[in-house]
Order: sequence, then structure tokens, then C-alpha cells
Amino acid sequence: MSVVHTARNPDFDAVVRESFARQAMMATLGAQIRFVAPGEVHIHLPHSGAITQQNNFIHAGAIASIADSACGYAAFTLAPPDTDVLAVEFKINLISPARAPSFIARGRVLRSGRTLSTCLAEVHGISDAGEELVATMLSTIIVRANSKRAPEAP
Amino acid sequence: MSVVHTARNPDFDAVVRESFARQAMMATLGAQIRFVAPGEVHIHLPHSGAITQQNNFIHAGAIASIADSACGYAAFTLAPPDTDVLAVEFKINLISPARAPSFIARGRVLRSGRTLSTCLAEVHGISDAGEELVATMLSTIIVRANSKRAPEAP
Amino acid sequence: MSVVHTARNPDFDAVVRESFARQAMMATLGAQIRFVAPGEVHIHLPHSGAITQQNNFIHAGAIASIADSACGYAAFTLAPPDTDVLAVEFKINLISPARAPSFIARGRVLRSGRTLSTCLAEVHGISDAGEELVATMLSTIIVRANSKRAPEAP
Amino acid sequence: MSVVHTARNPDFDAVVRESFARQAMMATLGAQIRFVAPGEVHIHLPHSGAITQQNNFIHAGAIASIADSACGYAAFTLAPPDTDVLAVEFKINLISPARAPSFIARGRVLRSGRTLSTCLAEVHGISDAGEELVATMLSTIIVRANSKRAPEAP
Repeated sequence: MSVVHTARNPDFDAVVRESFARQAMMATLGAQIRFVAPGEVHIHLPHSGAITQQNNFIHAGAIASIADSACGYAAFTLAPPDTDVLAVEFKINLISPARAPSFIARGRVLRSGRTLSTCLAEVHGISDAGEELVATMLSTIIVRANSKRAPEAP
Repeated sequence: MSVVHTARNPDFDAVVRESFARQAMMATLGAQIRFVAPGEVHIHLPHSGAITQQNNFIHAGAIASIADSACGYAAFTLAPPDTDVLAVEFKINLISPARAPSFIARGRVLRSGRTLSTCLAEVHGISDAGEELVATMLSTIIVRANSKRAPEAP
Repeated sequence: MSVVHTARNPDFDAVVRESFARQAMMATLGAQIRFVAPGEVHIHLPHSGAITQQNNFIHAGAIASIADSACGYAAFTLAPPDTDVLAVEFKINLISPARAPSFIARGRVLRSGRTLSTCLAEVHGISDAGEELVATMLSTIIVRANSKRAPEAP
Repeated sequence: MSVVHTARNPDFDAVVRESFARQAMMATLGAQIRFVAPGEVHIHLPHSGAITQQNNFIHAGAIASIADSACGYAAFTLAPPDTDVLAVEFKINLISPARAPSFIARGRVLRSGRTLSTCLAEVHGISDAGEELVATMLSTIIVRANSKRAPEAP
């Protein structure tokens, strides 16, 4: 799985961070972008009482949100200039309860196609005891030409 | 798909609503539970600037969150007393951009097993023009005996 | 889920059946195409000792094969002339053991886009007792311009 | 992802190979088991005209079949004696057309739970040019007590 990716947009780092900053959902969750490289993006999420499910674990939807953004932005690092990315679909396995003090979602591109990219994200809980795998996501991202008008469905 | 389900817990409605009220994530998103019946739960989400992605559509993670809770609680309506439910995994297809004024996630149980339940959720955008399918989720829910100690992973 | 679809290719029925006839995998499994309409295709599979798993149920891969072909051909009924379809991804929940005398996979298009289609398939076991839901699949299909040269990855 | 797994059944290798030999589907596809270790199983599949789709690529269902068996048997290597495994669900992304002379599905356990295991499989095409990623699967496996009577649905 150690594929070497090359960015086609020399400004990929700035473009990814600027788009992430426009995702109000990430700010609402308390998530921050931590690492941006060609084909790989990490997003960090602290545990917060605002995003729990009924047992005070982090809600699966919050874990899915950071994994989805990590996948989408991992694909975006490899996209040409003047494009945008949208998630077509994703699947997530919730492997351990999300009770750690914080979480890191690491999204990586498995294959970057002309139209579609396939990405894998792993979310680990981070505690004094180290890292524990919390969730794994497999997702499909579509790259679209950017336009000022509202995008249509793929 | 018109399976008739029978609740095993006579208090299923109260139990589901009480658990939903403990999901801080739902309040943070602005989601409300709207319909509870044996094998089916609906969750409503208004469009809000706090939960968007980079194009002002609702973030896929927020759509996934309400679909996941709708599936989990649909399964919970059929669970015996003194149990809890956890999502094992889910997969969601994001069919149209989530730009409607509000959204409804309708989760239904396809099969309710002793340990595992399979659920399907459809999320529709609601506007003056009617309803539009925004996303479809297929998920697996595990029913666990409730305990006061922190639950372990399945 | 009762969307009305209109075929863009007047020869959709012949085109689907001709392509199905070229899928050697379907003949090897013993599967036959049974129903072709705009946005919907059914594939029938008799139980056979050649396609079982270790307990004499039909192997999940055989069930997935007919569901995948039903989804792909459901999408193909709505595709323009001179195109082809490829599965991008699918997810299947195996809901009951596949031990019935025969099975029917009913694939339907949830949304037909310019590039991507989203499809849902249900596989039922058929016995004297009636039909039982065996599996549910959610899949993404890509429509490609047909070409004589070998197609590339999407 | 380099988790070290320990087998609980000292006969895991023989038990896995004996069960694989009972999967008639694998023989029908032409698949062979190649590698068995705690938490990891590989299955090899030569290209064959009997299992193609309409363009002479290997049918996605055949690729899914070997990935599913690789995941199930990877989970089975870690199961206690006198148990059996069943796939609950799986999701596969078809990343490149399956046109290589042969294929290897490598299934690995991401997490082995008391009831459920989460597995990841990668299928590579093998040619003189090396290996190419063809598909990635994420799946959930249930471990059941073995019984002489027909197993019920989970």
C-alpha cells in the first residue's frame, strides 16, 4: 500500500487547507487538519461532550465525518487545479468504541483516476496507552471541474 | 420490503426517545426524532450553516449521522428490554447534493436477528418542490445486553 | 422508491440481453436473466452443488455476482447507445443463509446520473414457503463510452 | 496495520484448509488457497474464460468471491475450536479492470472480536510487469459455535 503519489497542482497544500477551512462542519465538531501530503491527509478530533452518542462515546457520524473529509482531501491533493471533490459513497467499520481523549483520521489514496479516486482511512484513538484502531473507511471520491454555479449531482 | 415487525419491549417508544435525547451529537447537528414505530424511526435535520462542507451543502458526515441514528434506533425499537445498540458498520451512497432546506432520514429494519440487525435508511431533502433522494444507507447494528460498566467492543 | 425511469436507448432490452449472454460467469453459475425493464433487471439462480460454501449454502460470492450483474444491467437499461457499464463498488449484507432451491436478484436504479448510477438489489430465496430476503446490495455503476480498445480504469 | 495475531486453535491451519476444500465455489472458479497464517489467508485465482464479464475481464463477483473467502478464512484462523464463520457483509471497490493472467486475494484481520471480526482484503493482478491493485474489500465476519444442525441466520 506504499504507493508514491505526485501532486498535479503545485498549490495542493494551500488549496486543501483553504477548502477545509470552509467546511463549517469540521469547526462544529472541533476537528483540525494536521497533515497534508500528496495522496494523504490527517484530521485530528478531540473528544467532546457535544458530539457523543448515548453512552458518551463519540458518535459514529462524527468519526465518519473526519474519515470522510480525510479521504476527500487526500484525493484533492492529487486533483488538477480548478477542480473540486465530492464523496460518491463511503463505508465505515466501527471497530472499537470511540472513547479515547482524541482521534486521528488518516486518509490515503489507493488509486487516483481521471474521474474517480478510491481512498482508505483509518481512525485511531490516541491515549497515554498509545493508539487504538477505532474505525476503517473505504470510499469513492469524484473529481469535478470547479464552477461558480452550484454543482450538479455526479 | 413491507415487513411487519413486532416490538418485544412494550416501552420501546419511550426507550428510544430517551436514548436519542442522550445523543449530544444530534442536538449539536440540530436533529430531532420525528417518528418511532416498530422497525422504523425518522430523524429530521434542518439545513444549517454550522454543518456544511466547502460548497455550503450539508456535510456528508452530518447526513450519515442522522441516517446512522435512524438505523440504530429502528433496530432498537425491536430489541428486548435492558439492551443497547451499537453500529457495527454502515455504507452510504450520496446520491444528490444536500442543499434542501431540510432533510428526513427514514431508517427501517430489513431483518432483526438475535444478535445483528440489518437496516436501510433513505435520506430525502424536503423543499417546496417535494422530496428528493439525497442518500441511501445500508447498515449492520449489534444488540448488546445493557450494563452499567463501560461496554466493550463487539 | 417507485421512481419511473425512461430508457434513452430504444434497443435497451436487446443490448442488455446480448451483453448478459457474453458474461461467461453467469453461465458458469447457472444464472439466467429473467426480467428487463427501464431501470430494473432480475436474474435467477438455481441452487447448485457447484457454487456452495463449506456448509452447502450458496457462496456469498455467487449471491454477490448475480446482485452485481442485476445492478449493472439495471443501470445499463438507462444508458445511452454505444456505452458500457462497469461496477465501481458494491456493498452487500448477507441477511439469511442462502439455502433455498433457487434465488432471484432484483436490481433497481435509485438514481441514474450522467456518469454514475446508484443501484439497489435485493436477493430473495424462493421455496414452496414463498420468498425470503437473503441479501441486499447497494452499488455504484459507471457508464462509459464504448470503444473497441480495451477500456481503462475509471 | 501490522497487528500480531495469535491463533487460539492449534489446528487452525488444517481446519482452514479442510473448510476451504469444502467450498465447491472455489473449485468452480479455479481458486486455490496459498497461504495460511494467524490472521492472514491468501487465495490465488488464474484468469479463465469461464468466469468473465462482458469484456473478458474477470467478473467482479469472482473477484469478490476470492476476497470474501480470504477474509472469512483469515478470521477463521483466529477462531476457537468447534466454531464456524459466516460473512455478515462486505464492501468491495473495483479499482482496476481484472485482466491480469492471475490474481491473489490477501485477507487480513483488522480486529478479532468475541463475536465479530473486521477484515481487509486486497486483490492484486499478477503479470510479468508485477502486481497491480485490482480491488479492496472491507468485511465483517461472525464467529458461530459449530453445530451439526443447519445454522440459523445471525
